Amino acid sequence: MKTAARANHREDIVGRANVEDTPELLAYYDELDKHHTAALWTVANKIEPWQPQSSSVPVVWRYKDLREHVLRSADLVSPEKAGRRVVYLSNPGRQDVAAAVGWLYSGLQTMRPGELATSHKHSASALRFIMEGSGAFTIVDGHKMTLGANDFVITPNGTWHEHGVSEDGTQCIWQDGLDIPLMNALEANFFTVHPELQQAVTYPVEDSTAAWAAGTGLVPANDTWSHGYSPLFKYEWAPTYEALARYAKVTDGSPFDGVMMNYINPKTGGPVMQTMGASMQLLRPGEHTKAHRHTGSVLYQVAKGKGYSIINGQRFDWEEHDIFCVPTWMFHEHVNANPSEDACLFSFNDMPVMNSLGIYREEALKENGGHQKIQTP
Amino acid sequence: MKTAARANHREDIVGRANVEDTPELLAYYDELDKHHTAALWTVANKIEPWQPQSSSVPVVWRYKDLREHVLRSADLVSPEKAGRRVVYLSNPGRQDVAAAVGWLYSGLQTMRPGELATSHKHSASALRFIMEGSGAFTIVDGHKMTLGANDFVITPNGTWHEHGVSEDGTQCIWQDGLDIPLMNALEANFFTVHPELQQAVTYPVEDSTAAWAAGTGLVPANDTWSHGYSPLFKYEWAPTYEALARYAKVTDGSPFDGVMMNYINPKTGGPVMQTMGASMQLLRPGEHTKAHRHTGSVLYQVAKGKGYSIINGQRFDWEEHDIFCVPTWMFHEHVNANPSEDACLFSFNDMPVMNSLGIYREEALKENGGHQKIQTP
Amino acid sequence: MKTAARANHREDIVGRANVEDTPELLAYYDELDKHHTAALWTVANKIEPWQPQSSSVPVVWRYKDLREHVLRSADLVSPEKAGRRVVYLSNPGRQDVAAAVGWLYSGLQTMRPGELATSHKHSASALRFIMEGSGAFTIVDGHKMTLGANDFVITPNGTWHEHGVSEDGTQCIWQDGLDIPLMNALEANFFTVHPELQQAVTYPVEDSTAAWAAGTGLVPANDTWSHGYSPLFKYEWAPTYEALARYAKVTDGSPFDGVMMNYINPKTGGPVMQTMGASMQLLRPGEHTKAHRHTGSVLYQVAKGKGYSIINGQRFDWEEHDIFCVPTWMFHEHVNANPSEDACLFSFNDMPVMNSLGIYREEALKENGGHQKIQTP
Amino acid sequence: MKTAARANHREDIVGRANVEDTPELLAYYDELDKHHTAALWTVANKIEPWQPQSSSVPVVWRYKDLREHVLRSADLVSPEKAGRRVVYLSNPGRQDVAAAVGWLYSGLQTMRPGELATSHKHSASALRFIMEGSGAFTIVDGHKMTLGANDFVITPNGTWHEHGVSEDGTQCIWQDGLDIPLMNALEANFFTVHPELQQAVTYPVEDSTAAWAAGTGLVPANDTWSHGYSPLFKYEWAPTYEALARYAKVTDGSPFDGVMMNYINPKTGGPVMQTMGASMQLLRPGEHTKAHRHTGSVLYQVAKGKGYSIINGQRFDWEEHDIFCVPTWMFHEHVNANPSEDACLFSFNDMPVMNSLGIYREEALKENGGHQKIQTP
Ligand SMILES: [Fe+2]
Ligand SMILES: [Fe+2]
Ligand SMILES: [Fe+2]
Ligand SMILES: [Fe+2]
Ligand SMILES: [Fe+2]
Ligand SMILES: [Fe+2]
Ligand SMILES: [Fe+2]
Ligand SMILES: [Fe+2]
Repeated sequence: MKTAARANHREDIVGRANVEDTPELLAYYDELDKHHTAALWTVANKIEPWQPQSSSVPVVWRYKDLREHVLRSADLVSPEKAGRRVVYLSNPGRQDVAAAVGWLYSGLQTMRPGELATSHKHSASALRFIMEGSGAFTIVDGHKMTLGANDFVITPNGTWHEHGVSEDGTQCIWQDGLDIPLMNALEANFFTVHPELQQAVTYPVEDSTAAWAAGTGLVPANDTWSHGYSPLFKYEWAPTYEALARYAKVTDGSPFDGVMMNYINPKTGGPVMQTMGASMQLLRPGEHTKAHRHTGSVLYQVAKGKGYSIINGQRFDWEEHDIFCVPTWMFHEHVNANPSEDACLFSFNDMPVMNSLGIYREEALKENGGHQKIQTP
Repeated sequence: MKTAARANHREDIVGRANVEDTPELLAYYDELDKHHTAALWTVANKIEPWQPQSSSVPVVWRYKDLREHVLRSADLVSPEKAGRRVVYLSNPGRQDVAAAVGWLYSGLQTMRPGELATSHKHSASALRFIMEGSGAFTIVDGHKMTLGANDFVITPNGTWHEHGVSEDGTQCIWQDGLDIPLMNALEANFFTVHPELQQAVTYPVEDSTAAWAAGTGLVPANDTWSHGYSPLFKYEWAPTYEALARYAKVTDGSPFDGVMMNYINPKTGGPVMQTMGASMQLLRPGEHTKAHRHTGSVLYQVAKGKGYSIINGQRFDWEEHDIFCVPTWMFHEHVNANPSEDACLFSFNDMPVMNSLGIYREEALKENGGHQKIQTP
Repeated sequence: MKTAARANHREDIVGRANVEDTPELLAYYDELDKHHTAALWTVANKIEPWQPQSSSVPVVWRYKDLREHVLRSADLVSPEKAGRRVVYLSNPGRQDVAAAVGWLYSGLQTMRPGELATSHKHSASALRFIMEGSGAFTIVDGHKMTLGANDFVITPNGTWHEHGVSEDGTQCIWQDGLDIPLMNALEANFFTVHPELQQAVTYPVEDSTAAWAAGTGLVPANDTWSHGYSPLFKYEWAPTYEALARYAKVTDGSPFDGVMMNYINPKTGGPVMQTMGASMQLLRPGEHTKAHRHTGSVLYQVAKGKGYSIINGQRFDWEEHDIFCVPTWMFHEHVNANPSEDACLFSFNDMPVMNSLGIYREEALKENGGHQKIQTP
Repeated sequence: MKTAARANHREDIVGRANVEDTPELLAYYDELDKHHTAALWTVANKIEPWQPQSSSVPVVWRYKDLREHVLRSADLVSPEKAGRRVVYLSNPGRQDVAAAVGWLYSGLQTMRPGELATSHKHSASALRFIMEGSGAFTIVDGHKMTLGANDFVITPNGTWHEHGVSEDGTQCIWQDGLDIPLMNALEANFFTVHPELQQAVTYPVEDSTAAWAAGTGLVPANDTWSHGYSPLFKYEWAPTYEALARYAKVTDGSPFDGVMMNYINPKTGGPVMQTMGASMQLLRPGEHTKAHRHTGSVLYQVAKGKGYSIINGQRFDWEEHDIFCVPTWMFHEHVNANPSEDACLFSFNDMPVMNSLGIYREEALKENGGHQKIQTP
């Protein structure tokens, strides 16, 4: 009999549901079922938790473990058949939605010299962070950009885009980041293959960077950009690192994040896309930040250096190119283990979603001087 | 062996993944598993669909079916034990998240004269649409409002709120609408019971309406409201219907929605809350709108009249107080079946989410004069 | 010799210019003249005053004095020759720019039944406040509105507009308010006569009010308004007074302004036009507000009741239809002299300019319990 | 008799005032005078011109003429007595308001090594463009910046600020630009001397530039800036010129302005201050732009190269450090006279005022291939 299997999420607290199952109620529940309805008090405590319990788990993906598998995918499948040769990060708690953390997808993609993917567009927004290789390029709505290690590039929702590696390049690997799981969850994902399979490059190469990444607070006059995302598509590593180093000289930084800067849309001063933000932060030699937690999911890639992060009481060691995630509302703190060199963490997140919907919340750890106790498993 | 069970979402279209399982690949996939990774091409076509396929199904909940069950809940459980006596709408495709459609929760709540719920607050935003009974009231952050049939009231995210029915009232029923499923999905839901279980009424009764629902484009001067939601909490039925009737005289209306108005935040001209919008539309006698579809989910309640809607080729008849949903990207058109009286549909939706994230998309039906063919089951 | 006549604005205060004229300097000044230059220190204290000294003076224009002159203008000049028969308010300190106060123009216009002005448009923004007569109407970009006493109507910058009185009306008088002096000062005033001298009424009469002045926080859905001014052109007196009366019941009001509401653009919640705002305030029976001062100029018309205002220490008595001005940075307080009836003041101002340019500043009078001492002349 | 002297601005055009003086009318006008009123039709055509006629005239101020006078001011007056030693640009049409053009003030200021001005603040916004000398610095609200040739620095409204030249520097000259005339016209100008005459430097030197002038679309995370002006105070010449040169490679530029970039507020992507914008434009070797005109006043300084501009049909030759103005609504086109070197024009303007108030208007010259005919005097 069906009623035997009902879950009951009772809590003995004033203001919370606490209804005992009785034969009469179980029969009532069955009746409600017939009308596509149910009794709120049977699930109220479950769907109104005291605070978020992320279904994601903290994970570190070590590049030394993944790299050979990524490279090998190029032997195993052709770009024509695979579309893209990507080993994606599958959070043990989020396998059903193919997410690395929360609603964020991420994967490591590889392409060989002379390869060029099919042009397409989708409602999902995407970003790339280059890990190794030379000759990579991306085309976004007719704007072509060449890419080197630690460059960050966006291919926003609705833009025609494709990636390739030039003939004289080397096999490349980069990290993809997309909001595919969120777009699917919101049932708003559309996908279109370019009618001619490749788009034309209709602007001078690197024009987006030349126009919008000006060094000193300058933007093109007479501009008519009206999209919700940044007209600057590529953010290069060298000036990014230089900016952080320069900023580090004049700031105390954040107690939780060290010296941190956000990649921005120069048209608005806001995040690069409407669903995903990205940042680069520098941890000074030996720096150990304090713990805080917040809504929103974050996926980090180590751009430089080595160290560890403590997430939800667990220690995760990392070095260059390692990727790790911090799920929603889990305390986290970062440590640069090198006493003489700085470390840099690239990260992307869904903070624009939290902010647009008015649900960003943040909290510092009060106990223990702001540091978590590491739990021994 | 695990590999035997793998799904494969191949499509034989250029630009889509089309990789055949081979023993070598299946072994490779097993290897990836060990590192919390997987091959994108095995799921790419699944997670990048050509267009959204909503997991919700169109449903009509008929009030004549539900009413007795809702009333009966007051006999079956006490407000102290149940928290709230609500029969919620459980979409067959969304039972796992307790949603009526998409990420929107809805239920029918009842309270008896003299009852008063515990005050609390949560990250989820809520709205109410009164269906029957007299003496209902809501308190939001110290502002008390009395409520009559077809009144619409909001209790936004983060506000202390509670509902009750005065001693001299009658048993009331109203529809609740919340973004609980979305807040849970975004792992951003917090819940707090008021430390004193009831809040004080610290403003004159009805002050929000008196201040902000002025008839002719007036708002309080010297105002310092800075929240993301409307300072106007209650939108009464009488002036709403009057507004529609007046507007109907000077507009042709929308081909898809008849004469439609949005409830707004008078501080911004935008939606009442950051995650949910609400509207009231009037279908003129005999009006049959054209079909369109769009991203975002909508839940309708019939405020007045009778007729039917065609959703995804299926006809759903409705009359006063019936509730029905239109899932994302399903064609829908509405018919006022009465040739001499107008019909009114109240609705709420997650369009603010679609708009804030840049993913709203709309399409008119081109075929058959803009009307769907009704599918006979 | 020219140098003899030079002004010198010396102040003997550290940080201020204090240079004595010498023959050498006077010769130097003559030399600078030749190159279209001058020495800053000779004018610095003048052009950088410690605080604003308005060139406008407080004035009350009594309707009983002006009415006969306004009516007589209709005998003296034809609408064809005069364009508009307006007696304008000429502040003694602002005669050179034809302003009533600051950069605001205002006048009393009259039209007879059956008269219709030529359609035109200009960069100056305009508003009207109806004082007497029946049958008046205004057409704005194809939208026609009929107007009664104390109705407020806008004809924003760049809109085709014209005024008239219907054949079955009576001779009308209304107050015009425009930013003509500001537009001239900013050298941005353009004027065009309608190519056909009259524009067509292309929308249903009163459609703007029917669509946008809905009583309870509702606006048309599917709207695409993109102008910088309000789509609601007319704000009627009856619902305005009703709104104030209703708001008065739930608010303590402002110490400086009593119960005050702003006319707003329902698309934005902001002022009705980008250069001029407007308000209606209610002074409760016997109310005597406290004094404050602020940047920005205000022109008041008494919509109801009688009393007086103290402006810069001077008392100005007023009754219905009287108009008075408060120049920039002059202390002002208002008194409703009637112990049993409320009084209402309509006002318009250039606060949107102050706010857009970041130069709004306000200060309460601290001395004497917040009340000015009336200076006896 | 007074009436004899009245101006009459009659125009014999339908829709314009065209009333002949009669003895009866002249007596009526005298009567109106007594009540601080006047007849609109006597001034209507004057105050509602068909299009703006700027009271400013085009002027070029040649540095070779001014330099010696500027330097000499340092011999003639002490900083203590003069406040600031500035030779200001006095447009022949705007001497009454001490403006260089429209409502913009500008002057050439000089300071000697070891001098330091008194700290103060005012409602007027200010900017500086360095012309010659070494060791100059500016302090803004505790942020100190050193300044070299062609650097651009802002000291926004309401900020404590002061300028100086270090002991080991050389005598410096820079151009000041302020909206003093506008602030005076708007009667919103306040001035305060710092209570301690000098402010403390409370941030690391150059911190504003280090934090906000990052090279590649990065801004400080965790920032809480909430002012209406840019947190970036200094825009250095080297990266500005580099940015222009880089942008020039990927753009065709504007037909009217060549390769032009705006200095922006990185928090908003908008102008550096709410009342004044600034730009730098590069004219390619031999470039001759087309003529256009617009509302808003512009003051140019030649940062590099030589050439001429045609303003209102008049040719104005210029070379490095020359300053010239373009008054409102006058056609202008620019010519780089050097066939092998680029030329750069720095400019500032009141476009933010035009845009905020909704009165920006622009027009290309249609005749003669878009080029003005030079009028021989
Ligand atoms: Fe893609
Ligand atoms: Fe964090
Ligand atoms: Fe609740
Ligand atoms: Fe729809
Ligand atoms: Fe007009
Ligand atoms: Fe005031
Ligand atoms: Fe200054
Ligand atoms: Fe120009």
